[in-house]
Amino acid sequence: MNITHAVELARAGREQAEKDLFEHLRTPSVSALSEHAADCRKAAGWLLQRLQRMGMDARLVEGDGHPLVFAEWLGRPGKPVLTIYGHYDVQPPDPLELWVTPPFEPAVREGRVYARGSVDNKGQHVADLKALEYAFAAGGPPLNVRVWIEGEEEGGGPVLPTFVRENADQLQTDYLFVADGEFIREGLPSLEAGLRGILYTEIEVRGGTHDLHSGQFGGLAPNPLNTVGHIIAGLKGRDGRVLIPGFYDDVRPPDSDEVKLWVPIQEEDVLRQTGAPALEGEPEFSLAERRQSRPTLDVHGVRGGFTGEGTKTVIPAAAVAKVSMRLVPDQDPAKVFAAYGRYVEELATPGTRVEVREIPESSKALSCDLKHPGVPAFRRACLAAFGAEPGITRAGGTLPVMSEVDEILHPNWLLTGFGLPGDGAHSPNEHMSLEQFHGGTVLVLHLLDELGKL
Amino acid sequence: MNITHAVELARAGREQAEKDLFEHLRTPSVSALSEHAADCRKAAGWLLQRLQRMGMDARLVEGDGHPLVFAEWLGRPGKPVLTIYGHYDVQPPDPLELWVTPPFEPAVREGRVYARGSVDNKGQHVADLKALEYAFAAGGPPLNVRVWIEGEEEGGGPVLPTFVRENADQLQTDYLFVADGEFIREGLPSLEAGLRGILYTEIEVRGGTHDLHSGQFGGLAPNPLNTVGHIIAGLKGRDGRVLIPGFYDDVRPPDSDEVKLWVPIQEEDVLRQTGAPALEGEPEFSLAERRQSRPTLDVHGVRGGFTGEGTKTVIPAAAVAKVSMRLVPDQDPAKVFAAYGRYVEELATPGTRVEVREIPESSKALSCDLKHPGVPAFRRACLAAFGAEPGITRAGGTLPVMSEVDEILHPNWLLTGFGLPGDGAHSPNEHMSLEQFHGGTVLVLHLLDELGKL
Repeated sequence: MNITHAVELARAGREQAEKDLFEHLRTPSVSALSEHAADCRKAAGWLLQRLQRMGMDARLVEGDGHPLVFAEWLGRPGKPVLTIYGHYDVQPPDPLELWVTPPFEPAVREGRVYARGSVDNKGQHVADLKALEYAFAAGGPPLNVRVWIEGEEEGGGPVLPTFVRENADQLQTDYLFVADGEFIREGLPSLEAGLRGILYTEIEVRGGTHDLHSGQFGGLAPNPLNTVGHIIAGLKGRDGRVLIPGFYDDVRPPDSDEVKLWVPIQEEDVLRQTGAPALEGEPEFSLAERRQSRPTLDVHGVRGGFTGEGTKTVIPAAAVAKVSMRLVPDQDPAKVFAAYGRYVEELATPGTRVEVREIPESSKALSCDLKHPGVPAFRRACLAAFGAEPGITRAGGTLPVMSEVDEILHPNWLLTGFGLPGDGAHSPNEHMSLEQFHGGTVLVLHLLDELGKL
Repeated sequence: MNITHAVELARAGREQAEKDLFEHLRTPSVSALSEHAADCRKAAGWLLQRLQRMGMDARLVEGDGHPLVFAEWLGRPGKPVLTIYGHYDVQPPDPLELWVTPPFEPAVREGRVYARGSVDNKGQHVADLKALEYAFAAGGPPLNVRVWIEGEEEGGGPVLPTFVRENADQLQTDYLFVADGEFIREGLPSLEAGLRGILYTEIEVRGGTHDLHSGQFGGLAPNPLNTVGHIIAGLKGRDGRVLIPGFYDDVRPPDSDEVKLWVPIQEEDVLRQTGAPALEGEPEFSLAERRQSRPTLDVHGVRGGFTGEGTKTVIPAAAVAKVSMRLVPDQDPAKVFAAYGRYVEELATPGTRVEVREIPESSKALSCDLKHPGVPAFRRACLAAFGAEPGITRAGGTLPVMSEVDEILHPNWLLTGFGLPGDGAHSPNEHMSLEQFHGGTVLVLHLLDELGKL
């Protein structure tokens, strides 16, 4: 691969690259909603075609849900293998009314494309694929390449880990490259030393067998919504500390060597990114620790009763709270879930029955050793593409299958991202900077080049 | 009026009376939902026609919302005036999926008609109107009669109190008869010595300016849903005691004379009516006190975030809790609201802003003196119609305008109801016993007869 030629192709192909990205963004591949199953398959088919067209051996791997797009090109025997990961599924777009332009009609404003999935993750894996396309056009990648683009990252299906487990020998890889995160700030790329894990649950509280009128039964009958309040308040204190007994027992603080490398997170930056008047969280920890190496707990929604216009005075028969926990090394989701379930039972108020369900998407946190030879190669690629070496950080988010992949393949991780803080992954008006999108492609080209020299 | 003849007409007219009721029930007159404004007007027009047809001077009184149906017949100069109150508006029918038959298609099963509004309040005021119809056919009521049927009981509009205030002299009434409640148990009519008041509010909690991803911001950004949990838990303890400072200061316990007359409420009855495994509430008070003379607080719904299928990991920008309080003599809604607002502010967690709104439907509790001559007349009417004297109780619910009407007109109250416990007012599968419906008509005929003798 002639790197100069490949970068030249990337420069000349920007307009077409944006067209390709926008085409992919128009497919509402929401994995969590069953009515979008056909859209997920359409997005997978679109990727399959592109990978085949550039000469890779590509196919769909089927499971119970949305297919995994798998491709490989092993044209450099004796050279290392690089595996590139992405996901074509996107989060549900609601609340729809807050979008300035519709979530599946990509619109460019001030150099950013606005669409659901723009930064998470279509803009990032299309950047990767464009780089592969140019690499093949400029003589072929200088090392062996595999591509995994799954459709169950936001939805929690097992096709990717099952595939990896059943084909571990054939999938051995030297490097696993994941661009699903963001820069530390504009101009400063990131290399992630880990990811938080997750445990996602529903708490269902039942009182009476049917909805009741609060005039007749207020003061007599249990109200599951009041109970949900007591449970939520009991789970996490006003100081941001999770109150589940034993929750912090297995938390392993990061090495002080690693912490020294972390780029500090400035309070004013987070205030600006969130728009909140003040932050909330464990005051004895730095913001970087609170995002990267401390577990936490959030409520995502409460279903039940009446939330419309007007004044219905109902005591609902049942209420459901959706609650997740972000986990860190070495917390075990199953052990945390057991303690959580027992504690939620204790928090329930008289006259209610509680059921706690795990939504099967749990994953342990991932901790990456950054002492492998891919790291200096990645540093040089960042310098070449963005003029800056990456800062070391850990992601606060989760890539659900990665801890399982880690246990099977033990790859050298290159976890990064081309997004910028404030891009609004999972929010209305999610967007991605087109400069970052194109820069991502150039970074991947340099990474291929650098890894090919090893 | 020949009472024997009138009761005979009632017996012969049962089939037609049911047809009339079902016709009224087919109109989805949901006052709280603006899309049903025309249906409310249709229900009012239907009532107007019936009242005019029986020879009453009837008209619609207009306000900003749904009209009041007003009728009078002053054909017995020198005799007392009886005013009959009802409301044609109904609660929203959701959750729709829990109805066995559609809420606005009345269906009879085991002698009960199932429909939204069947017991609350169409079945009750149609019973009243059928009695008037027979009374006119049997020589005319033996006293003067006015009818008020409003369309804003469930929705909180001001047309009735405004009308009463502006026409206080012309609306003076000896008795105000309201059938909007229920029997104490099958076979035992009720006479209510009071009603609880209500204060209905929304608490809006705002954190960031937009929805955030809990991976990136969990542990850093305030989560309004977690805050709502802390607020709900802070408002009412696990023992059912409301924790708003000063909340109980103005609570006036009922006279011990009155309490002696109260029919005790059996725990097993409430357990059966609600289906709850146990009851919740202040353990130091009897169930009758907890329903009738103790204030309470209930959460009706929490809006915000994601409550659908799957696992969206959102930290919502805002969340809204709908919370109401049932008030008793001598709590003042404005004073309670002020203390509540201050306290909710204190309960908010760091980084959130709270706004507390009153939904204008508040009313003081109503306390009725039962020493007036209408009470023995009512007792005799109950004996004649149902073979039992009424038990004395207070309603746990609220008739929002009644405390205001009381302050203006000081009527002798006759508060009762033809429903039965478990009819499910405000719930899916609301129903009314047709025997109770017809019995209500006969009771009103005897009441007219008895009051006419005074």
